[in-house]
Amino acid sequence: KLTKSLKACHFCWNFKGGGKLVLLSCAKFTPPPKKNITARVFSGIQPTGIPHLGNYLGAIESWVSLQEEYSSVLYSIVDLHSITVPQNPAELQKNIMDMAASLLACGIDPNRSILFQQSQLDEEHKMSMILAANLAMFQCQHCYTWQMKSGSLKNEGSVGLFTYPVLQSADILLYKSTHVPVGEDQVQHLELAQDTARIFNRNYGDCFPIPKAILSCTKKVKSLRDPTAKMSKSDPQIIATVNLTDSPDEIVLKFRKAVTDFTSEVTYDPEGRPGVSNMVSIHAAVTGMSVEEVVSQSMGLDTAHYKLAVAEAVIQKLAPVRAEIERLRTDQGYLKDVLKRGTEKAKELATPVYQEIRRLVGFS
Amino acid sequence: KLTKSLKACHFCWNFKGGGKLVLLSCAKFTPPPKKNITARVFSGIQPTGIPHLGNYLGAIESWVSLQEEYSSVLYSIVDLHSITVPQNPAELQKNIMDMAASLLACGIDPNRSILFQQSQLDEEHKMSMILAANLAMFQCQHCYTWQMKSGSLKNEGSVGLFTYPVLQSADILLYKSTHVPVGEDQVQHLELAQDTARIFNRNYGDCFPIPKAILSCTKKVKSLRDPTAKMSKSDPQIIATVNLTDSPDEIVLKFRKAVTDFTSEVTYDPEGRPGVSNMVSIHAAVTGMSVEEVVSQSMGLDTAHYKLAVAEAVIQKLAPVRAEIERLRTDQGYLKDVLKRGTEKAKELATPVYQEIRRLVGFS
Repeated sequence: KLTKSLKACHFCWNFKGGGKLVLLSCAKFTPPPKKNITARVFSGIQPTGIPHLGNYLGAIESWVSLQEEYSSVLYSIVDLHSITVPQNPAELQKNIMDMAASLLACGIDPNRSILFQQSQLDEEHKMSMILAANLAMFQCQHCYTWQMKSGSLKNEGSVGLFTYPVLQSADILLYKSTHVPVGEDQVQHLELAQDTARIFNRNYGDCFPIPKAILSCTKKVKSLRDPTAKMSKSDPQIIATVNLTDSPDEIVLKFRKAVTDFTSEVTYDPEGRPGVSNMVSIHAAVTGMSVEEVVSQSMGLDTAHYKLAVAEAVIQKLAPVRAEIERLRTDQGYLKDVLKRGTEKAKELATPVYQEIRRLVGFS
Repeated sequence: KLTKSLKACHFCWNFKGGGKLVLLSCAKFTPPPKKNITARVFSGIQPTGIPHLGNYLGAIESWVSLQEEYSSVLYSIVDLHSITVPQNPAELQKNIMDMAASLLACGIDPNRSILFQQSQLDEEHKMSMILAANLAMFQCQHCYTWQMKSGSLKNEGSVGLFTYPVLQSADILLYKSTHVPVGEDQVQHLELAQDTARIFNRNYGDCFPIPKAILSCTKKVKSLRDPTAKMSKSDPQIIATVNLTDSPDEIVLKFRKAVTDFTSEVTYDPEGRPGVSNMVSIHAAVTGMSVEEVVSQSMGLDTAHYKLAVAEAVIQKLAPVRAEIERLRTDQGYLKDVLKRGTEKAKELATPVYQEIRRLVGFS
């Protein structure tokens, strides 16, 4: 049986856990030209409801900045991926709308990105089935996410879970995407998408560009209760995770109770002092300062007071996001309309590609 | 690597080989009421091009008669199933149109049946992905067709081949089909569709009827060169298989060279005299007579002459079918139109079911 933990931890196609903070498109790793007009960025995010701080500072903020750098950007709320593990249907529907509200509140601009709901697009499914016919079993079996699942679940994963990376490949290739922001635990899945593109091109003629990874920094937001683990939506300790809709009081409480150590000084030493270093990382991320700046600014503060300073910075950062999420949540009609328009725009891109695929495989 | 034999032998969702003659809806097994108006029949056939005599006398003639017995009948040319093993795209496209022409020529009436091309319908794919999320791996792994493939192909089957029975389930359930004509080697796949319906109903509420098999008689048309094997499209000996478009001369040649034995008398003894008994079976099937009538009518004929008499009966039976196939083949516009209208009608049935499924799983 799939545990609650497994169920809730999906984020950004991320099987391992929710709290991963990955700073995508860091200039030092991938310097994309200002508005790359020949490139197309695609990424997907599972509808887990309201994201937490780790999701925001990691994936979502980077998604926002990719809108500046690329002229064609698609973000998909991948509900088809969600149902590969058990879901409560009413909760899933709510989570889809909450994710849409959150992405918009964080700065995803439906006029610059195509924001849509995966299952509304017919071509995703069709593409996935055609690609599945071109992939050997071992290509899915070797994916570590499946191996992890089939190990820990004693092979009780669903067929949908097994074919999860095929659907990801379909997501990416359907738009002839050239760039895919991924966390490090999704690199293998992107490699499968690359292999899939190569196999299809070999079998049916040159059709797909080989999508490139936009590699992420490996900076991660950690649990406030266990700084050796990632911040995660499914953490059984509620105070370990800061959600984007948490009230200032809740945020203060969570940071006040954050695990640090018995040294009162503020230093950055992720190995030796993971708790305080997590505070420093978060502080730097929400203020836009460097770790060094943050540490030097905090000279003289003890960790108890420092945690409250970080909480205050987080509250400041999240205040407009939180307000906007709450506002958008009350306007379900608008959210549905955004997703509908996104689906239409995605369909405009997908249709000619899918028609080409149909012709290539001999369906028409 | 998938062999040519494997590639060409699919028919009627039949993995084992092409030449299976199954008399579906035999009155003694399933007595359906005259025009069962609450029932819905669904079956699929792989686009293998022009069918052979075994396909015709087995599956296709029964499909024609099911049109009389049920008021809602769907026949799908399952091209998505075809590509789970390698296909030549140009040949596949030709084979789809040839299969459509053949079904129409054999008596499938687009005004009484919904005849359509599987891949043209978006809902098939979507349904399949949702069902896959509800099926455990072992449910596909246990299917003997996969076991056979993964054994003989040293596990080189595609992911699409592995999920083949899930797509079949989607085909059936998408229309809330109640009856499915199947050959005996497809019973396990229908059982998977039944299990899938039960699992979905349990997980999401009562939605699907449990589809029943329309069991087939096990009468089979055998190879003319090896009467212990089924007649098959992929038989390396061309003269072993009679195609619906064979000329009278070709049919005479094939029957003249048909393997019988050294006894000249005509008797029916499938175990002891498989060659002559195959002649008798074919003769009975194409004339509508019983085996006993055929045998008694052939008293005094030696097998050499008898084979020519059977050839003549086959020529008579196939003459109008052959002429109609040739006529329809020259009218690709009409064939495309039939499939297009079929797709529209299938979509009318599929859309409300799929909308219900979407709502049940929480996508909308």
